[in-house]
Amino acid sequence: MLNHYLEECRARVVLEIREIVPKEDGPGRLLYDLMLDYPLRGGKALRPALCLATCRAHGGHEEAVLRTAAVLELYHNAFLVHDDVEDGSEKRRGEPTLHRLHGVPIAVNVGDGMLALTMEPLLENIELVGLGRALKILRVVARMARESAEGQMQELGWVRSADWTPDDQRYVRMVYKKTTWYTFLAPVLVGAIAAGAAEPTLRALARFATPLGIAFQIQDDVLNLVAEEERYGKEIAGDLWEGKHTLILIHAVRSAAPSERREALRILSKRRPSPSEEGASADVDGDARGLKTREDVLFLRELIERTRALDYARGVAERHARRAARSFAAVDASLHASVHRDFLAGLVEFVTERDA
Amino acid sequence: MLNHYLEECRARVVLEIREIVPKEDGPGRLLYDLMLDYPLRGGKALRPALCLATCRAHGGHEEAVLRTAAVLELYHNAFLVHDDVEDGSEKRRGEPTLHRLHGVPIAVNVGDGMLALTMEPLLENIELVGLGRALKILRVVARMARESAEGQMQELGWVRSADWTPDDQRYVRMVYKKTTWYTFLAPVLVGAIAAGAAEPTLRALARFATPLGIAFQIQDDVLNLVAEEERYGKEIAGDLWEGKHTLILIHAVRSAAPSERREALRILSKRRPSPSEEGASADVDGDARGLKTREDVLFLRELIERTRALDYARGVAERHARRAARSFAAVDASLHASVHRDFLAGLVEFVTERDA
Repeated sequence: MLNHYLEECRARVVLEIREIVPKEDGPGRLLYDLMLDYPLRGGKALRPALCLATCRAHGGHEEAVLRTAAVLELYHNAFLVHDDVEDGSEKRRGEPTLHRLHGVPIAVNVGDGMLALTMEPLLENIELVGLGRALKILRVVARMARESAEGQMQELGWVRSADWTPDDQRYVRMVYKKTTWYTFLAPVLVGAIAAGAAEPTLRALARFATPLGIAFQIQDDVLNLVAEEERYGKEIAGDLWEGKHTLILIHAVRSAAPSERREALRILSKRRPSPSEEGASADVDGDARGLKTREDVLFLRELIERTRALDYARGVAERHARRAARSFAAVDASLHASVHRDFLAGLVEFVTERDA
Repeated sequence: MLNHYLEECRARVVLEIREIVPKEDGPGRLLYDLMLDYPLRGGKALRPALCLATCRAHGGHEEAVLRTAAVLELYHNAFLVHDDVEDGSEKRRGEPTLHRLHGVPIAVNVGDGMLALTMEPLLENIELVGLGRALKILRVVARMARESAEGQMQELGWVRSADWTPDDQRYVRMVYKKTTWYTFLAPVLVGAIAAGAAEPTLRALARFATPLGIAFQIQDDVLNLVAEEERYGKEIAGDLWEGKHTLILIHAVRSAAPSERREALRILSKRRPSPSEEGASADVDGDARGLKTREDVLFLRELIERTRALDYARGVAERHARRAARSFAAVDASLHASVHRDFLAGLVEFVTERDA
């Protein structure tokens, strides 16, 4: 049922993104075509669905929030384009990443162009929902953009200094900024604001969305290790090749025996080979050149198994999901009975049990 | 006199940028420190000076526009960070570029963070200049961000397809979007809006700022070939190494004899060697690996000389500067006599005669 709701939202939001992206031929055409690439590839459309469901479950109209929901999806895709550059990712939604297709310079600029396109629709909100709500939405989106950049930087800082000491608390704070804010918090807040919800409602929604976002990210990292590639759309174990600071790897490193930990840190200090280097990285030659080898990734996989790091991460995700479930009661009190309310109610289960 | 005015504006704007960038210690500290890197390196502060001068010459107060001027400088520096990544530039304001110091991932994110920080101050404008003016300023900035991304993409598209056929008109349209909008047009428009100027004044300012911006960019490209490195702050002839689509190179290529043009296009299809490849690129080995060599850059330099491309570009710049000078009369009619008016009046000469 949740998947059906997501698909319906996705169809609407893709149409709306097509409205936002300029259609005319001319000097900007290449830019605008490339902006549509990631949004048209698919994806769950979780953020706009959250936004639409929250607005409508609070009695708001679809027209009051559809454009804002599309802006959030545009932000998400802009972040994906830049994140893929920053993480050196190879695949996105089953196809090569934008910078693999068109080079880093064009990918960076396409992301910037998408960010630039978010402002005008948010200003048009003034006519749609009135000045007060439009300004509140703009403030939430401004904070969202700032929190996301902060969270991303925290992770990049850990990568740069090869820091594997963050404890669960620092990890959760990073995820709160990097993922939760724009994936859960901002969508429910702007959805509720568009419907005219008052401050206490916004606070209750924040208490629900925050732990849900943490659980979502941890589950995403679990999926990166165990999902089937076709369903998941990204390469499996890409996180290990990239040396991403997931709770799983953090836990595996800290739980390892001293000699294993040294070996893990040595491996994690090496960079992922670029596609042209991939042949070389499979053997000892890659190792000598500071590139991760297949044996390295296998070692990390086995370390994760020995330290039961997947179970540990799943446990943390479940604790956060349960907190979200408990907070839902306060949210539910002000919701209208509807498919939109049911979508929100089903989210906790969706986040922890999804397989793609 | 102009330089003195620029320096005074720069001092004020740097203080204001320090106000905008969060000061607290915490997870975001690394991000915020790196955001301040480029702004603190110096630079002309031309954009905020234009903005302040236009506001004050129209009778507006400094407080009405200082924050907006700082936002424009923040945008400029964010664009520089991303442009340096996209162009593979080595130096900025006399020091290594941000991505050379911290890597591409961090540089991309620092630019995103700077863009994210621009929204909240523009919303605070509502208290400073009233709702109507604040919204007008937001709309100009939104258009500016979009035009800049379009212009940048046009240039990157020419680079990707090794297209050296753009004529003067297409070149000017690219520069209008990529540089003029955010360097001249937006600063004078938001400055005048902050002062409460009416539509006819904005139109007169646009007719003045547009040709001035074209002249500025062409002169910037001339300087890249003839300036002293220490004064200019970027590496000299960096544009030739990068194969940037300047009017100078476009003219040199189209004016070359057929065999020379073939050789120039062959050279321009090669990429610039990265610093680690630089030794190799000096000799034939670099050539064989598709990297530009010093001989290649020398060939381009000599071609530019033979085709008198610098003189040609200077001539085009002067035609645009003269158009700006003629348009200034209409602008001047509504200006208050002041140092601010004198700064605007001196701009035409400054743009065409500056040496850094």
